[in-house]
Amino acid sequence: MRIAVDALGGDEAPGEIVAGAVAATKRLPGDEILLVGDEARVSKLIGPDKPQNLTLRDAGAAVGMDEEPASALRARPDASVAVAAKLVRSGEADALFSAGNTGGTVAAALLRIGRLEGCRRPAIATVLPFTSPAILLDAGATTMCRPQDLLNFAILGGVFAERYFGLDVARVALINVGEEPGKGDDLAKESHALMRDSGAVHFVGNVEGRDIGGGVADVLVTDGFTGNVVLKTAEGVSREIFGMLRSAMTANAVSKLAAAILRPKLLGMRDRLDPENYGGSFLLGVAGSVVIGHGNSKARGVENALRGISRTGAGLSDALQQALDSSHATPAGDET
Amino acid sequence: MRIAVDALGGDEAPGEIVAGAVAATKRLPGDEILLVGDEARVSKLIGPDKPQNLTLRDAGAAVGMDEEPASALRARPDASVAVAAKLVRSGEADALFSAGNTGGTVAAALLRIGRLEGCRRPAIATVLPFTSPAILLDAGATTMCRPQDLLNFAILGGVFAERYFGLDVARVALINVGEEPGKGDDLAKESHALMRDSGAVHFVGNVEGRDIGGGVADVLVTDGFTGNVVLKTAEGVSREIFGMLRSAMTANAVSKLAAAILRPKLLGMRDRLDPENYGGSFLLGVAGSVVIGHGNSKARGVENALRGISRTGAGLSDALQQALDSSHATPAGDET
Repeated sequence: MRIAVDALGGDEAPGEIVAGAVAATKRLPGDEILLVGDEARVSKLIGPDKPQNLTLRDAGAAVGMDEEPASALRARPDASVAVAAKLVRSGEADALFSAGNTGGTVAAALLRIGRLEGCRRPAIATVLPFTSPAILLDAGATTMCRPQDLLNFAILGGVFAERYFGLDVARVALINVGEEPGKGDDLAKESHALMRDSGAVHFVGNVEGRDIGGGVADVLVTDGFTGNVVLKTAEGVSREIFGMLRSAMTANAVSKLAAAILRPKLLGMRDRLDPENYGGSFLLGVAGSVVIGHGNSKARGVENALRGISRTGAGLSDALQQALDSSHATPAGDET
Repeated sequence: MRIAVDALGGDEAPGEIVAGAVAATKRLPGDEILLVGDEARVSKLIGPDKPQNLTLRDAGAAVGMDEEPASALRARPDASVAVAAKLVRSGEADALFSAGNTGGTVAAALLRIGRLEGCRRPAIATVLPFTSPAILLDAGATTMCRPQDLLNFAILGGVFAERYFGLDVARVALINVGEEPGKGDDLAKESHALMRDSGAVHFVGNVEGRDIGGGVADVLVTDGFTGNVVLKTAEGVSREIFGMLRSAMTANAVSKLAAAILRPKLLGMRDRLDPENYGGSFLLGVAGSVVIGHGNSKARGVENALRGISRTGAGLSDALQQALDSSHATPAGDET
């Protein structure tokens, strides 16, 4: 598989991005990494021992974090993420990774690579790092959704989760305010009916916020507004509790001693919840694998993201297109 | 203040409800509690030492957890929550507390007590129990909201938070997917503009999910769909992390010893996040104080809820009506 990496996007670019890409080449000897960015600068960072399966592609500056994505891409068609997207478009690469401006990556994907047929809007699929990890989508690409969009997200998320987690059949749930089919706003009610009646999704029904980490589903579907709020609430609550834990454990000398004993276990726990374990979110619904890294991605996050891309394989977007096609070809079944 | 308590609603009713009400009479000597339910049974639970400021009112069975609220109330107008609501309607009580079927309490409030003028739909206001507690509304009463509903929730939430937390001016924020005013779906964008331009709210702008526990606002406004998902996600993540913590601390003998040393601190931390500290959520937008207890409320939760009701005072719904009236009388200002 050939993965184009935007070497210039992200708070820690290019240093951490290049380091992560180089590390990934060793873990993924069968894949090829194309580092896209200021060739002289990137080359210097790699040093004399450039791995065999790493190539460089020159490009202009990244889309800045404060730039308006669409106009930045219009003004600078050689922006690193745009060049990486063109490599996917032309078939020189199968996938694109960028830790730069999320809007810039989404815009480059939509404008340069294009959408899958039958998919009005894309979704960001992200892993919720609980004891039983699950894919949440949409985590923020499409804030205004229609029921058909959520059905498409369910189909895309199911196929993706099967590849990403190595499952036979992914269990897909709809995030809602209650378990009963009649619960929720109009979008939730209509989407529930569409998912239930579609033969293309293994739909397990509604799931409430409190059960999103409980292992009841592999894929959690919602609109981009709710999904973004869910994801950030989970991050905020997690940070809050770890903050309280830190205060509790440094309250006095005895607490500190006990905390020192528990330290390895607690670090292990924090690591399990660390988003760097996954390193990136997949933009599903576009005609190629597009992965959005955290803005503050470090080398480990980049490496893990590239391994995730490799695991889902070069055929991901073909498989997604096929799933959408057959769901539209098949008349809605009746599974109630 | 006179508070009508549905003695029969809740998983632990009537035992824990009655015990909590009796405990509250001691903490609130200036208030009167009216226990509403099967008089013979409740009387027996109280025993011979009935507090002076406790009175009993006979009523039929509670609205069951699995009953359809509106039809249950039609079929049994003497249901305990309906009788308690009638006491508020007639002015015999200032407030109503029930830990029974939430839909039943909302329906009894809307049908028997009625809405405040100018308030199309009510909101459930609940305390997010973080280091810096904040009021979240709507936590699930109104899943389909219009921008004017969210402005009303902002006004109601502000006045409520000022009384509940004893603040001079409550800082009100809108939950959204980004901090900039142009972010979000249509509802969020239009609500943002209304709140910003209303002189009736001290609006501090958008807040993201990750900052809801960060003390940036006293009131967090959103529609009932998003609010319910946020609240339950926070509960779920919190439970997940405490579960991981428990596993880490019981992994081996040394961990267990260290955990035993930290136990008091950790219990203190868990207690701080315990919803029983607040014991109930206020239904704002109806013409009386209506408080919805957790279904599994124990005596401590009931007592804390009744103390919260007493703290906000008998004049709460008048103050809310006044705030709505003057917001509608004042033409929208221009604060940008």
